[in-house]
Amino acid sequence: MTDVWINGRFVEPDGAIAANDRGLLIADGVFDTALVLGGRVFRRDAHLDRLAAACETLAIPVSRSDLEAAMAALAERQEAGSIRLTVTRGPGPRGLTLPPQPRPTILGSSAPLAPAMIFAPLTLHPATIRRNETSPSARLKTLAYLDAVLANIEAKAAGADEALFLNTAGRPACTALGNFFVLRGDTLSTPPCADGVLDGITRGWILANAESFGLAVREEGLSPQELESGAILVTNSLRLTAPARLVRQETRPTPEPVRALMAGLCEAIEAECGVDPRSLGAVIGA
Amino acid sequence: MTDVWINGRFVEPDGAIAANDRGLLIADGVFDTALVLGGRVFRRDAHLDRLAAACETLAIPVSRSDLEAAMAALAERQEAGSIRLTVTRGPGPRGLTLPPQPRPTILGSSAPLAPAMIFAPLTLHPATIRRNETSPSARLKTLAYLDAVLANIEAKAAGADEALFLNTAGRPACTALGNFFVLRGDTLSTPPCADGVLDGITRGWILANAESFGLAVREEGLSPQELESGAILVTNSLRLTAPARLVRQETRPTPEPVRALMAGLCEAIEAECGVDPRSLGAVIGA
Repeated sequence: MTDVWINGRFVEPDGAIAANDRGLLIADGVFDTALVLGGRVFRRDAHLDRLAAACETLAIPVSRSDLEAAMAALAERQEAGSIRLTVTRGPGPRGLTLPPQPRPTILGSSAPLAPAMIFAPLTLHPATIRRNETSPSARLKTLAYLDAVLANIEAKAAGADEALFLNTAGRPACTALGNFFVLRGDTLSTPPCADGVLDGITRGWILANAESFGLAVREEGLSPQELESGAILVTNSLRLTAPARLVRQETRPTPEPVRALMAGLCEAIEAECGVDPRSLGAVIGA
Repeated sequence: MTDVWINGRFVEPDGAIAANDRGLLIADGVFDTALVLGGRVFRRDAHLDRLAAACETLAIPVSRSDLEAAMAALAERQEAGSIRLTVTRGPGPRGLTLPPQPRPTILGSSAPLAPAMIFAPLTLHPATIRRNETSPSARLKTLAYLDAVLANIEAKAAGADEALFLNTAGRPACTALGNFFVLRGDTLSTPPCADGVLDGITRGWILANAESFGLAVREEGLSPQELESGAILVTNSLRLTAPARLVRQETRPTPEPVRALMAGLCEAIEAECGVDPRSLGAVIGA
């Protein structure tokens, strides 16, 4: 971690967190990861709005302005990097009972960007762990992220880059680290949040902008067969849009409208941050 | 927290944990909670064995002797209390990828016992969040505990003491903080671990000892109707065995064989720790 910010100031990362923080003990918190270029966070307000809303869902009392201050302090030190904001319910007594007067922990950290990761193709392995769409954790970036850790260990053992989660109804929901779209004909489809899906920021950008690139776009439940029948695109805030395939499928070229969409996303980033990711080495491949 | 132990020594709880500990950031770890009386941990070896096995399942490299040292150091300072041992994969870089040479965090803490909690009756509320039996987290005490936090908030809002989880197949699995048994006739039944259930230490004691009290005992999948048709007993290492009912059910007296089982558990604790919980104020009620 390059910089670490806790509750209003930069601190040394070692020994920064109390041993009784509920984020550590019972995953009682949420986080957000955002792209920073030229000291500016891409889709900054969307990230802050979503994180503030997640805190509200969990009844963790933090102000959006405190989140904004953490993000701003970290961003202005970063030319090209990522910022993770983590909010926990803070220290608490033993057990699950909510502290009567919670003192949340706002932990921000930044890391350098690996531009080669942006747009890099991925292979996916269907996880044996299902995404539990009955839990709010399936729709929020909560600290209860262990299923993704374990599913990715399994994916790597199977020779894939990342896990693909089906939900408990057997419908593809998301990957360990991102959302996905599937392109069939000229239509991009992505599962609805009700299927156990985070409303990802890049997902949101595509839902709002795909039509400008000649693509129809919709949220709809998908079967595994429907997923396999099209070109898969995995999205998150650091990789942006990664062409993907199941590990047992053949590689296929990225369809032209998707390549145009990826270029359009770079232009949107440049318009907001003043830096085109391609100028740093991100490559829209074959 | 009374005492806090990290990686081999007692420390101050504030500022004890690194900001990049994977336990905090992605719930990458496991824990155990045990009862201490007279400086001795009840079913100490069973707790250590289970925790060491869970670490092995997650491929977190810790030695059982380090866990034992933490437990022993904390126990000898406690006349009547609880010990929580938490093991995380330790600090790591951004993302899910496993650190090549993990330096796990062993965090132990103790808290005073509330003897009135032992055997105290509970009301249960069926949670809208399902227990995800497809995840190893359903069978281990992992840090990804947020579902239980949220389900208990819901339970308390419904006027109950604790959440009852059904699994994704609709079968009752466990409560937010414990296992359960249901007594029908003279048979105690508890769901198998495959249903998304931790192999609780008190659960194990009952499975091994119920027959001595004239009760048949078996692990078997249960329907919600079967759960409601008998007397419910919630078990965990601090409450021991709590008579329970769904919040909408009438109170009923604890059946005599169950009361004998509870007394037998107190005697087993006294044999191992030298202290009978009833001498501290635990009451086997009506």
